[in-house]
Amino acid sequence: MSTHPTLEDITTVTCVGAGTIGGGWAAYFLARGFTVRVWDPSPVAGEKLSRLIDAAWPALSELDMVEGADKTAWSVHTDLAEAVAGTGFVQESAPEDLDLKRRLFADLDAVCESGVIIGSSTSGYTMTEMATEVTHAERFVVGHPFNPPYLIPLVEVVGGEKSSAEAVDWVADFYTRIGKSVIRMDREVPGFIANRLQEALWREALHMIDNGEATVEQIDRSITDGPGLRWPFHGPMLTFHLAGGEGGMAHMLDQFGPSLKSPWTRLIAPELTQKLRDDIVAGCVDASDPRTFVDLVTERDAGIVALRRLTGSGLAAAAEPADSATVPATAPGCDRDED
Amino acid sequence: MSTHPTLEDITTVTCVGAGTIGGGWAAYFLARGFTVRVWDPSPVAGEKLSRLIDAAWPALSELDMVEGADKTAWSVHTDLAEAVAGTGFVQESAPEDLDLKRRLFADLDAVCESGVIIGSSTSGYTMTEMATEVTHAERFVVGHPFNPPYLIPLVEVVGGEKSSAEAVDWVADFYTRIGKSVIRMDREVPGFIANRLQEALWREALHMIDNGEATVEQIDRSITDGPGLRWPFHGPMLTFHLAGGEGGMAHMLDQFGPSLKSPWTRLIAPELTQKLRDDIVAGCVDASDPRTFVDLVTERDAGIVALRRLTGSGLAAAAEPADSATVPATAPGCDRDED
Repeated sequence: MSTHPTLEDITTVTCVGAGTIGGGWAAYFLARGFTVRVWDPSPVAGEKLSRLIDAAWPALSELDMVEGADKTAWSVHTDLAEAVAGTGFVQESAPEDLDLKRRLFADLDAVCESGVIIGSSTSGYTMTEMATEVTHAERFVVGHPFNPPYLIPLVEVVGGEKSSAEAVDWVADFYTRIGKSVIRMDREVPGFIANRLQEALWREALHMIDNGEATVEQIDRSITDGPGLRWPFHGPMLTFHLAGGEGGMAHMLDQFGPSLKSPWTRLIAPELTQKLRDDIVAGCVDASDPRTFVDLVTERDAGIVALRRLTGSGLAAAAEPADSATVPATAPGCDRDED
Repeated sequence: MSTHPTLEDITTVTCVGAGTIGGGWAAYFLARGFTVRVWDPSPVAGEKLSRLIDAAWPALSELDMVEGADKTAWSVHTDLAEAVAGTGFVQESAPEDLDLKRRLFADLDAVCESGVIIGSSTSGYTMTEMATEVTHAERFVVGHPFNPPYLIPLVEVVGGEKSSAEAVDWVADFYTRIGKSVIRMDREVPGFIANRLQEALWREALHMIDNGEATVEQIDRSITDGPGLRWPFHGPMLTFHLAGGEGGMAHMLDQFGPSLKSPWTRLIAPELTQKLRDDIVAGCVDASDPRTFVDLVTERDAGIVALRRLTGSGLAAAAEPADSATVPATAPGCDRDED
């Protein structure tokens, strides 16, 4: 539809919510040369965002940053209309609370210019569930990132029942243009794809801890020193294609298909008892000791940078020179609003 | 027990079975300076093993190889007694067939010198299930590797009901000494740890493909460009510890615990229908095109080498200089037996 902004003309984008995910998006958008307007009701949002951007900037400068990117080209607003003024795209990353998202979407729908697309970072809800209180449901689309959004290329794109095909196309094109690895889903599936897979593994880990079959440390090392070394190169399907030897996946399925009948996995999530919760928390605290949260972030970011350089993951898209039009001149003295 | 071989005196080990896993172990043992005696009934076992070692050697020389390692220090035997003559350790990697393993273990028990430990690469059976026909069950221990065993450091070690604690200790020490990342499990759990986790993810992927929710390509990219970029650094537990922000896993569990009740995962394995099988095979063939099997192996191996250098995974152990005693002089004119 001609009413959607033209991709190459967009210089300003809006992040609604500036937590770990929304703030990560803000850092990424800045690195891609945009001016970023942030809406967040927290009085410390600006301060936290400033720290997050500072922490992300070195990694961003290694991979996805365009020339002229300005880490100060952002402002925080508590007024939603102000935050979306002149914006070309809105990325919503509010807390995972369905009622909150519904109300926020209605508010966004009321203040956003016609044709502006709203992408949602939701990890658990479908757009059909969320866009119930809006007039222009056609412009609401899920664009689900992974933590940290400034480094992990994957974005899962899927519309709701009322999203227009044009809006879904537009947002897939937008993310691709800014260097993301887009998976466009044809159907709304709770959890999308990667989280469904990750969640299956996570629930199984919870069962094993709950049953005393493995510790937190063993769970983690079984992945980092085992299958986790393969997954950045070949996903689970190609990994097993290779495991089938020269006979590939066909041999694999024909040989190991019967083992699908074996009751390996405990496939219903366990009750999250206080004890299970506390055991897991203690295990994580032990496993990370003496590294601080910042140490872990630094370690992860350095690792992902090196890994993405190694695998080329998302770099083909990011390597395309951005149109000069997407690298707006910095607005001097941008109105940081760190209230 | 004093009857087990002294680790530093071992110069020869035996691989029972020379398929992808057994052959991978053989390549690894060679790189660690051992003379390797291989039992395999296939007339082409020697030829296949020779190709496998040639393919693995460059990657091995980047990471785990000790000085004096000789890629020709192996021989193939069709007689089991001959294959275990003078051996200090036996790694069994026969096909996953319970009856076959039971018979093979009885045969091994009869021909191995007293005190020699037998480790099994089984990925699906417990030692209690397998060691039913042997006289000396105490020396049979699971040592479960990951493909390719010459690059992935993880080995899961667990005894059966009748395995002696000494044998379990011995084999854990042996693998650690040769540079492996050992997880010693206290309880026999079908699928051990990493495969339980990997299998949960795999079953979920099968469901999504079966239900038309995702393609093979989407499943793989959702991992390689998403969570797969984190798992070589932080396993699933520390990943979510980080996802909880500065509040860590406690915040994560308290905030997202309720979502465990949501019915995301389809937690029973789907029927492996002919159509599902064929769809998956076709998807893998498409995804790998035009790369050959060898291309994929080369790609994976180069990636894992770079990754392990990056994460240090398994390198601390491997970096310890091997005792000169573990680097035996090459037996000149070793009796390759490529029948």
